[in-house]
Amino acid sequence: MTTIKAYGATEASADLKPLDIERRTVGQKDIKIDITYCGVCHSDIHTVRNDWGGSQYPVVPGHEIIGLVTELGTEVSNFNVGDLVGVGCLVDSCHNCSACDQDLEQFCEKGATFTYNSPDKHIKGKQTYGGYATSVVVDEQFVLKVPENIDHAAAAPLLCAGITTWSPLRHWNVKKGDKVGIVGLGGLGHMGVKFAHALGAHVVMITTSSDKGKDAKALGADEVLLSKNQEEMNSHQGTFDFILNTIPVGHEMDPYIALLKLDATMVLVGAVEPLKPFHGGGIIMGRKRIAGSLIGGIKETQEMLDFCGEHDIVSDIELINMQDINNAYDRITKSDVKYRFVIDMKSLKN
Amino acid sequence: MTTIKAYGATEASADLKPLDIERRTVGQKDIKIDITYCGVCHSDIHTVRNDWGGSQYPVVPGHEIIGLVTELGTEVSNFNVGDLVGVGCLVDSCHNCSACDQDLEQFCEKGATFTYNSPDKHIKGKQTYGGYATSVVVDEQFVLKVPENIDHAAAAPLLCAGITTWSPLRHWNVKKGDKVGIVGLGGLGHMGVKFAHALGAHVVMITTSSDKGKDAKALGADEVLLSKNQEEMNSHQGTFDFILNTIPVGHEMDPYIALLKLDATMVLVGAVEPLKPFHGGGIIMGRKRIAGSLIGGIKETQEMLDFCGEHDIVSDIELINMQDINNAYDRITKSDVKYRFVIDMKSLKN
Repeated sequence: MTTIKAYGATEASADLKPLDIERRTVGQKDIKIDITYCGVCHSDIHTVRNDWGGSQYPVVPGHEIIGLVTELGTEVSNFNVGDLVGVGCLVDSCHNCSACDQDLEQFCEKGATFTYNSPDKHIKGKQTYGGYATSVVVDEQFVLKVPENIDHAAAAPLLCAGITTWSPLRHWNVKKGDKVGIVGLGGLGHMGVKFAHALGAHVVMITTSSDKGKDAKALGADEVLLSKNQEEMNSHQGTFDFILNTIPVGHEMDPYIALLKLDATMVLVGAVEPLKPFHGGGIIMGRKRIAGSLIGGIKETQEMLDFCGEHDIVSDIELINMQDINNAYDRITKSDVKYRFVIDMKSLKN
Repeated sequence: MTTIKAYGATEASADLKPLDIERRTVGQKDIKIDITYCGVCHSDIHTVRNDWGGSQYPVVPGHEIIGLVTELGTEVSNFNVGDLVGVGCLVDSCHNCSACDQDLEQFCEKGATFTYNSPDKHIKGKQTYGGYATSVVVDEQFVLKVPENIDHAAAAPLLCAGITTWSPLRHWNVKKGDKVGIVGLGGLGHMGVKFAHALGAHVVMITTSSDKGKDAKALGADEVLLSKNQEEMNSHQGTFDFILNTIPVGHEMDPYIALLKLDATMVLVGAVEPLKPFHGGGIIMGRKRIAGSLIGGIKETQEMLDFCGEHDIVSDIELINMQDINNAYDRITKSDVKYRFVIDMKSLKN
């Protein structure tokens, strides 16, 4: 075991502060990673504040990890010391269930081990600690290769915001020429716009604010649809092949359902809370679908990173020091970030 | 034009009573049908009472029509006088849109012509009148062939309740060995049980009442799950390949969503009204789907009827006279029918 520096919260109401945590010794199939950057996800805040229940303290968040390999277990063959790598929301799964067999470790039937706040299989009685730390030790099967040509700091959010939006676009086969709506322009939505654009879709930013519309166009949206303008909404009715809904809170879905074509799907990735009532007739007429999606499996995450390397796609970020984290949390809560904070982990090491 | 006997409502609050209506002269592509039986669907009541708005009076309901061909247009080649035929919810569509091209006339982009209460393309200024009548004239493309070997009266509900449940089971590819839940045991649900069973699925009746459970087993259900028993519900969590939800009113969906497997779908066919709020996390975890389905296209309806002929499937019915219709409506409103009333149209002719 090695004691390292980290940042975490000791209770739901506490600010994050410096902590010492332990990482396991590198096992035969493990990779030790020197963390250079870590993205800040809204889930980090929910877990720190125990919004979803089940938080074990201290909570050390962070599941958008970029770093360099510093040590390899004796049985690791696919990585070298010095490799640029990433770790996302998952660090282990059972490898034996029907979900794992389909490369969907996030839905592991035995329960995936998430990067933070999951029971740690290696250190009895402890929970996993995330990437707000100087280093991490991870099973090689959960370590991703990060293309060298993309900005390292701005690649961090690909590990959660990236795969969360990539996976449904791919799963539902969004393709060239499809009319795709992205609802909500935050950390998730801005990646949705970039990916849908890169996949060749006609991307429509669906937003309440014309300012966000302008921003979305700069990110690759072809069109802006103001959801508060009923006339505009009517004119787009029944025309969307796919809608990616990133709104992080419960909301009215009927106006978006009305936008879908026959047999088209709206996928929810943000609202992990009760939605407002929707009208059954909205999906019965037009045989429409509302589906969910949760991050993505390791294989799909690697495909996403490779695609980002080929298309030079990264997140738009604001780089901060570890010591700025509490202020960053306040700003995220007010939606005051374009579009993701990333921690420069040098600030914790010095 | 021919004046014929029918039964209808002259206003939302009125009982149904005898009316004279006009049917068009048989056109080149038309078929004239002597109606022998007509099923009574809950939609008939909603339309009579203007529950969904837009009802034009008089309303002559009835879209589960069985009859015999009595006259053919000069260009009709696929039918003969004396054929046993059916007419369901649709009597026309544009034949040119993307939905019609996919044999999904129910979603015709120009607006399908429904069997009653739709603008009548042939009689200007009038709406279509349904099957509570002695005869009907229908475009040959919307006339179905009914297998001679099944009970004629009990075949009537196949034209709406049958196709409404058949279509989602087929569209979502329910197959031998799948664990399929049917929620709600009324006109729709009892057909869902029969079809899912005939398709080789392991059929679970999900109901609040153990009496309905017994009835469902007699119809072909393999198992009964009492939705009010939390322990039983927990033990079935994450195990269903497909759920057909026939509940006709807004309801809590979370308990049913929890029953679905990874990537599995629940289809709503009954609740043409606002559902209660469901939790986004329920579909995000497990990448689940909620979809709608509306009757079925003509091609699929014919396939369903052919399947019923092969597997000797009909509805369980209670045969009534036309004069009993108002009492039947009262009983349907109290869910007091197993499982469909069918009108013996001899009673209107005598």
